[in-house]
Amino acid sequence: MMSEGPSRRASRLGAAALLGTIALLPDPAASQSGADVARAWREANEAEIIDDFRELLTYPNRARDIEDVTSAATYIRDLLRAAGAESELLSIDGVAPAVYGRLMVPGATRTLGIYVHYDGQPVDPSNWTHPPFEPTLYSASMEAGGTPIPFPAPGDAVDPEWRIYARSAGDDKGPIAAVLPVLHAFREAGIAPTSNLVFLFDGEEEAGSRNLGRYMEMRAEALDEVDIWLFFDGPAHQSGRPQLTFGVRGAMGMEVTVYGATRNLHSGHYGNWTPDTGNILAHLLASMKDREGRVLVEGWYDTTDPIGPEERAALENMPDIEADLKRELGLAWTEGEPETLPERLLVPALNVRGITSGNTGALARNIIPNTAVAALGIRLVKGNDAAHVRRLIVDHIEGQGFHVVSEDPDMETRLRYPRIAKVTGGGGSPASRTEMANPFVQEIIAATSDAADRAFGTGSLVLAPGMGGTLPLYLFTDVAGKPAVNVPIANHDNNQHAPDENLRIANLWYAIDLYAALLTMPRGVS
Amino acid sequence: MMSEGPSRRASRLGAAALLGTIALLPDPAASQSGADVARAWREANEAEIIDDFRELLTYPNRARDIEDVTSAATYIRDLLRAAGAESELLSIDGVAPAVYGRLMVPGATRTLGIYVHYDGQPVDPSNWTHPPFEPTLYSASMEAGGTPIPFPAPGDAVDPEWRIYARSAGDDKGPIAAVLPVLHAFREAGIAPTSNLVFLFDGEEEAGSRNLGRYMEMRAEALDEVDIWLFFDGPAHQSGRPQLTFGVRGAMGMEVTVYGATRNLHSGHYGNWTPDTGNILAHLLASMKDREGRVLVEGWYDTTDPIGPEERAALENMPDIEADLKRELGLAWTEGEPETLPERLLVPALNVRGITSGNTGALARNIIPNTAVAALGIRLVKGNDAAHVRRLIVDHIEGQGFHVVSEDPDMETRLRYPRIAKVTGGGGSPASRTEMANPFVQEIIAATSDAADRAFGTGSLVLAPGMGGTLPLYLFTDVAGKPAVNVPIANHDNNQHAPDENLRIANLWYAIDLYAALLTMPRGVS
Repeated sequence: MMSEGPSRRASRLGAAALLGTIALLPDPAASQSGADVARAWREANEAEIIDDFRELLTYPNRARDIEDVTSAATYIRDLLRAAGAESELLSIDGVAPAVYGRLMVPGATRTLGIYVHYDGQPVDPSNWTHPPFEPTLYSASMEAGGTPIPFPAPGDAVDPEWRIYARSAGDDKGPIAAVLPVLHAFREAGIAPTSNLVFLFDGEEEAGSRNLGRYMEMRAEALDEVDIWLFFDGPAHQSGRPQLTFGVRGAMGMEVTVYGATRNLHSGHYGNWTPDTGNILAHLLASMKDREGRVLVEGWYDTTDPIGPEERAALENMPDIEADLKRELGLAWTEGEPETLPERLLVPALNVRGITSGNTGALARNIIPNTAVAALGIRLVKGNDAAHVRRLIVDHIEGQGFHVVSEDPDMETRLRYPRIAKVTGGGGSPASRTEMANPFVQEIIAATSDAADRAFGTGSLVLAPGMGGTLPLYLFTDVAGKPAVNVPIANHDNNQHAPDENLRIANLWYAIDLYAALLTMPRGVS
Repeated sequence: MMSEGPSRRASRLGAAALLGTIALLPDPAASQSGADVARAWREANEAEIIDDFRELLTYPNRARDIEDVTSAATYIRDLLRAAGAESELLSIDGVAPAVYGRLMVPGATRTLGIYVHYDGQPVDPSNWTHPPFEPTLYSASMEAGGTPIPFPAPGDAVDPEWRIYARSAGDDKGPIAAVLPVLHAFREAGIAPTSNLVFLFDGEEEAGSRNLGRYMEMRAEALDEVDIWLFFDGPAHQSGRPQLTFGVRGAMGMEVTVYGATRNLHSGHYGNWTPDTGNILAHLLASMKDREGRVLVEGWYDTTDPIGPEERAALENMPDIEADLKRELGLAWTEGEPETLPERLLVPALNVRGITSGNTGALARNIIPNTAVAALGIRLVKGNDAAHVRRLIVDHIEGQGFHVVSEDPDMETRLRYPRIAKVTGGGGSPASRTEMANPFVQEIIAATSDAADRAFGTGSLVLAPGMGGTLPLYLFTDVAGKPAVNVPIANHDNNQHAPDENLRIANLWYAIDLYAALLTMPRGVS
């Protein structure tokens, strides 16, 4: 798999002259635009670009498999070097390395930070149509009746509706496979980006980016020069249109356990007498959120930062996908109606991720379970402090008459308190939101809008003030104090986090157009 | 294992002269009492009785393992024959056989039916201290620090605190091991029972006795002669005192599934918008029973048969074990306080046997589960009709705004109804209660009280109007129209349905005393 890795590519693409810097060349505006150069280069090298992507996808990349992710990171480091950037691995014992890189442009007065994660979600190969690290090309999506086809040879025509199936195709190796050709195209054409570039490729994103902050500290000086971070991650808008998003919700997991007797009891011998843990938990959960989805925990909505006029305008201009989405998902109602999904993503959420107590179905037994456990999924928005929100939840549980503990109660505690709840978890990652009014952000919007117009039609770009999911954006926005914009390129139906993950080739081409546009934005703000 | 089975025992005990009948002999009251005869015989043969019990316990007996249970049933049939009864297997293709037996006493004017089940709960040997079908003798219970000891040789002293550990030791092979020595003792002493005996040994009790009714029909004529059924099953009262119980609750399992989107959705991307199945289920379950344990389903308590003065007196005389039981089980409260456990067993119960939705703990994921499922455990009491109770529950769920279905909803249904609940299950087995005022019952109470006085001290017998658990008593009381009394002999801490099931030797000796007393009750009622 690795035998003809980076070296093959390096020889095909020409070795980098001087890693990490690039000769100052004529302003691209003076001749061919960066986007045109990258487009032409892509059109001349489609099979090669796809083959490079295929090779990148063969690297297993679950964050906890240190040997695997180190191989993948080393391979990517060498790819960056071959594309003319300086690059190195940042390492901490026992955790996945980060790939750091830099490309300095003499005379550039702006620095773009580029975040990608090269690690992937765990896989259960038995649920995949093909082995997840043996990339397979399809004539179209499986759902649309696509069938496996051979990878193209150089010069073969490439259909943009093809899909490449493999773990991380959509989340998040696609951006790596797209940004490198842009760098090669620029070098070959003798043009330079209009910004310095700092690359940070996370190897632990799917495992919570627990060490990303430490890696960032290792290169604090270089990262401090970044003017705006671009997060190359995530899918297109559900409408299929490209999007930019300006924030993510934070995530916090908590778990609540309620107690009955010290052991499961026979539901015949003790039913009607011993506390019914499922019912106790039901009353508690029901007290936390009403039937329409409004969280009843006191203070829940009090610390949400208000949005500005740009965000409000963006919300109003977003495609109305409610009806389609409800039809697709089989829903006759949604929480908080008539508010829309994008609006609902700007307020903190409290959901039940899971409940376990006894068993159901064929495994159900005639017992009254001695515990009932609920895993709560909390999503935070800008303004929420995780510790404060956790406190609100604990206060609520206490307000429902529970004695709250952090460990399983001992006998003395059991005999003293009628209702006991163990509450664990908390922490998690904070929310982040970048004001759309920020001038660097306005530049990114303009460049992305141009690329989207070109790839998907005029006015196709969707501006979404907040994403529902969670990325470690806060490290960049709140800890490092920089604006950060999420710049997704994957098709909406890329099956991220699921079997048969894929990337549509048209989206890879869009990424190349887009990154070329971003890397050659006019030298504005500085 | 079977090489020296029944034949060895038969030769030791003397072959039956004429199977199924017994010579009419002098009334035992005229000479030595039946109880004295059995006691003396037991004292002379303790090691042999224990060894016979050991052998019986080596037979694997999970109801669905037809070959195993057929071997066990055949062995038991031969034991009955060796003890002078006529006996045969009743068979239905593909299910565990029942062992039927009869011992006619010329001149007897009363017929006792004796129900035992020879099948046992499934076992997971990895949870057992010793293999469950390799009986192991202990010097005391494991909890009391007992250690394994060799089985005694004939003539060795036997400590009544010894325990024999094996699956079905307490539930329910012990009664078989105790009733056979009584028959042998009587034959050897030349005395006869004062009643005809009909034996019915169920092979499917732990699997719900699904075919017991059919087996009963196969011997309907003989069974119709039974005046009262004695259920030799179950443990002593929680206080450790012997007991008689006069009814069981019925059991009905139902399952409720509520629906969100057609698939699990990412809790970040969709949380606050897609229906939160855990919360929906919580509101539904909370609506069914209040925090103090009172069922809120309309009509729930309306069809409960009232109890009579004998039952009320029995309730008042039962040992007050509430405080001890709560202390043992770590409970600071119980449902329906200040009503006691025995009182609570005389009203229908609605409990949550299990809930499954998504996952908790290390397996929790950032999803909003597309379903939440609750397994409901319903216990019926005399007067309740299962179909009616099921209807009450369905009506309640509909009253909570749910569209109730019996299969997973199709897309059209999903898009039409905001709240959908699939309700499955129902049926189950009815409750049964025998009036304590019945004259046959009064005879049983008198004889058992005598045996209990002798074994455990004067006034030790507890009379419990209803047990919480479920036995197929209704087939005898409601279908066949006979009184039926549950006559337990196992120690309270016999670990029935659990690993390390055991019987205390003292309880085996009590069973022999008790059965001898029951089989030689004065010829009263008839």
